[in-house]
Amino acid sequence: MMNIKDYCNLIETALINSLPQGEYREKTLIDSMEYSLMCGGKRIRPLLTLMFCELCGEDVKKALPYACAVEMIHTYSLIHDDMPCMDDDDYRRGKLSNHKVFGEDIATLSGDALQSLAFEIMLSEKACLSVSPDRAVKAAHTLAKYSGALGMVGGQVIDIESEGKNAPLEVLKEMDEKKTAALIKAACEMGCIVGKADDEQIIAASKYAHSIGLAFQIMDDILDVTSTSEQLGKPVGSDSENSKSTYVSLLGIDKCKELVDSLTKDAIDALSVFSGDTKPLIELALDLAQRKN
Amino acid sequence: MMNIKDYCNLIETALINSLPQGEYREKTLIDSMEYSLMCGGKRIRPLLTLMFCELCGEDVKKALPYACAVEMIHTYSLIHDDMPCMDDDDYRRGKLSNHKVFGEDIATLSGDALQSLAFEIMLSEKACLSVSPDRAVKAAHTLAKYSGALGMVGGQVIDIESEGKNAPLEVLKEMDEKKTAALIKAACEMGCIVGKADDEQIIAASKYAHSIGLAFQIMDDILDVTSTSEQLGKPVGSDSENSKSTYVSLLGIDKCKELVDSLTKDAIDALSVFSGDTKPLIELALDLAQRKN
Repeated sequence: MMNIKDYCNLIETALINSLPQGEYREKTLIDSMEYSLMCGGKRIRPLLTLMFCELCGEDVKKALPYACAVEMIHTYSLIHDDMPCMDDDDYRRGKLSNHKVFGEDIATLSGDALQSLAFEIMLSEKACLSVSPDRAVKAAHTLAKYSGALGMVGGQVIDIESEGKNAPLEVLKEMDEKKTAALIKAACEMGCIVGKADDEQIIAASKYAHSIGLAFQIMDDILDVTSTSEQLGKPVGSDSENSKSTYVSLLGIDKCKELVDSLTKDAIDALSVFSGDTKPLIELALDLAQRKN
Repeated sequence: MMNIKDYCNLIETALINSLPQGEYREKTLIDSMEYSLMCGGKRIRPLLTLMFCELCGEDVKKALPYACAVEMIHTYSLIHDDMPCMDDDDYRRGKLSNHKVFGEDIATLSGDALQSLAFEIMLSEKACLSVSPDRAVKAAHTLAKYSGALGMVGGQVIDIESEGKNAPLEVLKEMDEKKTAALIKAACEMGCIVGKADDEQIIAASKYAHSIGLAFQIMDDILDVTSTSEQLGKPVGSDSENSKSTYVSLLGIDKCKELVDSLTKDAIDALSVFSGDTKPLIELALDLAQRKN
């Protein structure tokens, strides 16, 4: 059984190797894709894909194309999200955002190409040889569904349209279920699909993902008011300044902490249908609920 | 055997039905996707998918998800291409471009969601029931490959980087092979894959696509200097004003017309490996070479 660091090394190597290798006229584009893809994020989504695959008793290497794909989708969404016509952020994880380095045209296109690459690697002959075409189809379909108009992108639209409107709790919840939890669901479900899980296990993985995804967002809101900007690596209190609804503004901080605890418990309970070692996934859920940044 | 009009009706119906149906909070996004997808284009790419499927003797309805998918990829690329950070076009086919109607943020996201939807419909349970998972994987992989960093998006980057540089013929050719021909190749190859074609036939379809794709671009350059802006529906002579290399500026108009003829002949010759009725595809190649707009 591998530890988190081994998993992360596998992911970093697979990500860099999945970019086009060699000399191409579109070098700037590939550099731009690499700049954002190899940026040192926490890799939570691809980790979840590998961890669920291992939990199901399969070789995690089979899940690598799917782990890389979900990270590529996440990365493209961050590149587009930082653009001036969206959130207009000059920095991402302490580094200049993609369009500040490569220009808005290349940033748009490298986001687009990362989405294509996600599907290309999941459906490659190599991936399908180890996973079987019907499971490759099911995994890639899962990622497409959760990424699109009624998934991650839909959540971004709900976010844009809620700005300055003090959105009610149900809108905030739907937004986060789509904007954040959907891609985490895709990551967990794909790990199970590659791991030959049955439907009950896939539903359980989806429940785990849903719960840690929402807990993650609520923690974000809590940290925005309780943390220092040094701990957080970004300005604190930015949400209330923008008259943006948050879980804290709608429910108060104590109720929010209770919610994080109960969602984390839900996530852990959902894992009971698996007979393998669920300890790493339990720890991950607890870590996310106790994080300081 | 169906005629072009029957094919087009099938495509229009399948496209509108492939958008999310029902009431959703992300209505603006879905409206924006529909606005550009149902814009009355010529539908050349999806037509080619259906025509190659029929040529291989399969029911064209099986190819519909793949035909719709290639049109969705084409549409998303036009939405992003019209944005201020790219070509900055306010109009597309005589209508306001997507970002002029919905804003740049929604236009970015509806392009992104159209790309996800393309893969979602190709990999849906319904599509795979009629096509078999291994052919669904092969078709979707083909579209991903030709859409991405070394395909359509790569061609757009080469285009951006060649601006104002009087690019030589080899760069112009590589740009068009990727920017235009790659997606036409995807359309034709996917029709063959769904139609259970053998490798020789897939290669022939790819050759046909490559030839009509390049002929199409050369015709564009010819029309830019010989047509009236009324016939063309856009200003003429715009290329030479931007000191942009064109086939006409590099080779002269007579040589360009010869090239279109010889590429059209190559396209028609490539069809000889098929035993079915190639007449519709021959006519399409001839029509493209003789078009006035």
